Amino acid sequence: MGTTKSKYVIANAMLVGVGRNAGVIPRGYLVVDGRRIVEVGEGSPPADVGEDVMDLSGRMVIPGLINCHNHVAMSILRGVGTDLNLQRWLKEAIWPIEEHLTKDDVFWGALLSISEMALGGITAIADMYFYMEEVARAAAIVGVRAFLSQGLVGGNRSKWWHTFFATRALWRKWNGAAEGKIKVFLGPHAVYTCPPPWLRKATQLARRLNSPLQIHLSETAEEVEECYSKHGMSPIALYYHNDGKAIKTLAAHCVHLSSEDIELLRKFDEIHVVHCPWSNLYLGSGIAPVTELLEAGVSVCLGTDGPASSSMDMFETMRLAALLQKGKKQRADACTARQAFLMATVNGAAALGLDTGFLAPGLEADLVIVDLDRPSLQPMADPIAALVYEGSAELVRDVMIAGEWVVRDRRLVRLAEHTITLEQIQEQVRERHRRAVWERNT
Amino acid sequence: MGTTKSKYVIANAMLVGVGRNAGVIPRGYLVVDGRRIVEVGEGSPPADVGEDVMDLSGRMVIPGLINCHNHVAMSILRGVGTDLNLQRWLKEAIWPIEEHLTKDDVFWGALLSISEMALGGITAIADMYFYMEEVARAAAIVGVRAFLSQGLVGGNRSKWWHTFFATRALWRKWNGAAEGKIKVFLGPHAVYTCPPPWLRKATQLARRLNSPLQIHLSETAEEVEECYSKHGMSPIALYYHNDGKAIKTLAAHCVHLSSEDIELLRKFDEIHVVHCPWSNLYLGSGIAPVTELLEAGVSVCLGTDGPASSSMDMFETMRLAALLQKGKKQRADACTARQAFLMATVNGAAALGLDTGFLAPGLEADLVIVDLDRPSLQPMADPIAALVYEGSAELVRDVMIAGEWVVRDRRLVRLAEHTITLEQIQEQVRERHRRAVWERNT
Repeated sequence: MGTTKSKYVIANAMLVGVGRNAGVIPRGYLVVDGRRIVEVGEGSPPADVGEDVMDLSGRMVIPGLINCHNHVAMSILRGVGTDLNLQRWLKEAIWPIEEHLTKDDVFWGALLSISEMALGGITAIADMYFYMEEVARAAAIVGVRAFLSQGLVGGNRSKWWHTFFATRALWRKWNGAAEGKIKVFLGPHAVYTCPPPWLRKATQLARRLNSPLQIHLSETAEEVEECYSKHGMSPIALYYHNDGKAIKTLAAHCVHLSSEDIELLRKFDEIHVVHCPWSNLYLGSGIAPVTELLEAGVSVCLGTDGPASSSMDMFETMRLAALLQKGKKQRADACTARQAFLMATVNGAAALGLDTGFLAPGLEADLVIVDLDRPSLQPMADPIAALVYEGSAELVRDVMIAGEWVVRDRRLVRLAEHTITLEQIQEQVRERHRRAVWERNT
Repeated sequence: MGTTKSKYVIANAMLVGVGRNAGVIPRGYLVVDGRRIVEVGEGSPPADVGEDVMDLSGRMVIPGLINCHNHVAMSILRGVGTDLNLQRWLKEAIWPIEEHLTKDDVFWGALLSISEMALGGITAIADMYFYMEEVARAAAIVGVRAFLSQGLVGGNRSKWWHTFFATRALWRKWNGAAEGKIKVFLGPHAVYTCPPPWLRKATQLARRLNSPLQIHLSETAEEVEECYSKHGMSPIALYYHNDGKAIKTLAAHCVHLSSEDIELLRKFDEIHVVHCPWSNLYLGSGIAPVTELLEAGVSVCLGTDGPASSSMDMFETMRLAALLQKGKKQRADACTARQAFLMATVNGAAALGLDTGFLAPGLEADLVIVDLDRPSLQPMADPIAALVYEGSAELVRDVMIAGEWVVRDRRLVRLAEHTITLEQIQEQVRERHRRAVWERNT
């Protein structure tokens, strides 16, 4: 089934995220035709606007939320390795299990996380893992936009060529698929798993394919120290000097940055820092210097990271982005609700090169309809503050992506076309988790 | 209407928070008779247990969550003064409006917050504000346990006697009311608003009434600096040396503590630090040294603080308590999910002197029934980690307090007896917010 071509008229809704600067229309209307928003205005829609007017009194419409860093299949590993720092978590808890995951494990794990995120108002994700064709299949089933990378791992010839060829195969089969909703990115995992010259092979391939690149950079103090002792420079500098400068890059984490690193980030042709506050706390990595990045004019967007180290709730991710800087800097204006909201929408769209991220005529129609009838949202002195400080995935009622309803009344519309139920997905993941984690350990 | 005297048998539920150390029974039963839990066990209930067996397959039962610091009426001021640090927030945004709040404003504001909290699984609250009889009325209507203090403000004779007499009146009328669910505490606001010798008058009255005391201590760096420059010692020391040592105390915040302060906290006869992570971030106060307090053996419980500076979601409060220490200390084991869960249950009960906080025969039956049928809770490798990291107020289905159902199927049972609806409460607060905030400013 293709994109629906219908026209939708939304009336009497509070519109939040109007234009590039997070404008608010307390009561307005919005018209979608095909894939795009064609009108946004205050008050009532024009009388001649046509049929199919949806009265959204008492609800809010916001742009789709954009999650720029994930490993969606890791829902299979949710709750594994609690209370371990990143390096021990990876080496002792996660990697030994990942070695044995099957393609089907990745498919069902991805399908669960993508379902959860769509139900929570997330309309686009960036993801890095292995068996990525399975993640592409899951994204296409649910109907979300997905920017996918096979994780490239260097240092070992056979591993490198394996992940390199998997990247090329993914590119050929899936780049531009699902009516353009799926794109393939280059994905060198990190400078500690993909050191030069492997890193340069990755940047070369990115240039040849004209593809953006995503990479984990400066996630932990340990990673930065190790990079200095091996290469005499920080991960940011190492990437910059291995041809990273000229490649459009999503740099996940960037928790441990020197002031020189922040200066260097300004010199990249195009780099977007993906702040993942939840995961950085959970894995004991720290709190990224988001206030300093914003003050330096570096583009910052938001990611959850994978479900084995983070909640998938982008409202909570916005909330943490704002609250952590306030607490860390002991300055309540260190990151405002509006800044956090822009990170999850406008900045996320810029990072992924999407023609979405706010409400305006001409943009692709990625919309989320939010319930406001909650004690926690009364009174609403400031709609953006209410969304960021009191919002949650549970408030999301409907989600549209590229003009197509993906969630209606809290149900995933497209699962039925594939004769899959959410209960089946949950059961599959529970069972696969049991096999992957518990039966291995006993 | 009094406490129902019925017997309830809960079967086939996952029981979490069994005993003082957060035990888990994957499938068990629980019997309530009158106000108390009389049986807790694994597997199926005995055949002779009697009528009224509730099958809770696929649900979880936890002890009621305990919120040890609040200013519930401040929902009227939700969203006011965003992005201001505590002292400016109070002086520029909050206090000028509070001066004009009426008794009815306090009643409806309190009723909204207490309703929201009960729906979110909070069974007991500690609160400090003014017009506290209105807060007592609201708590009695909803049916939650409430530990209430008129804020005592010194420095100014007429203000002192006004708040002192209000405390005595509250004590006489409400201490022990609502079948013992309401208690009155002494409430000197803080050492900066209630300096010695007023502080000593408060501790003396606490001793005379044999009442515990709650106070804000060392919330901001500014407060601590000012205390040193005025009194030559920290707020903790100042309170200790003004007879605080011998009074059972709830010390809210304790964000800025020296190692000497932590040593001194161990020397109090009985002090409970109320960690309020959400509010401390929001107001730019900082992140309390919870890891150090736990390592020193100081009792730490959790509070949200008021709705003008915090979410009322205790699941999120547990989550922040655990995550913030991990991030701040860069140690994923700096505060575990289990420790955060105990702070919100067992430690909260100890702070308030409640015979609740875990599931065991003989305790008062304060229970919360939680839905598990969510993608975010699949798989559930560790039920306590799932609750803390993925839980939210929205998962709560039913709440029992002292053997009485207060929430059934996400509805407040007792509002109907008072012919009040949640929609009315929300409308009242919206309207009063509009009058108090917007009409004053224009």
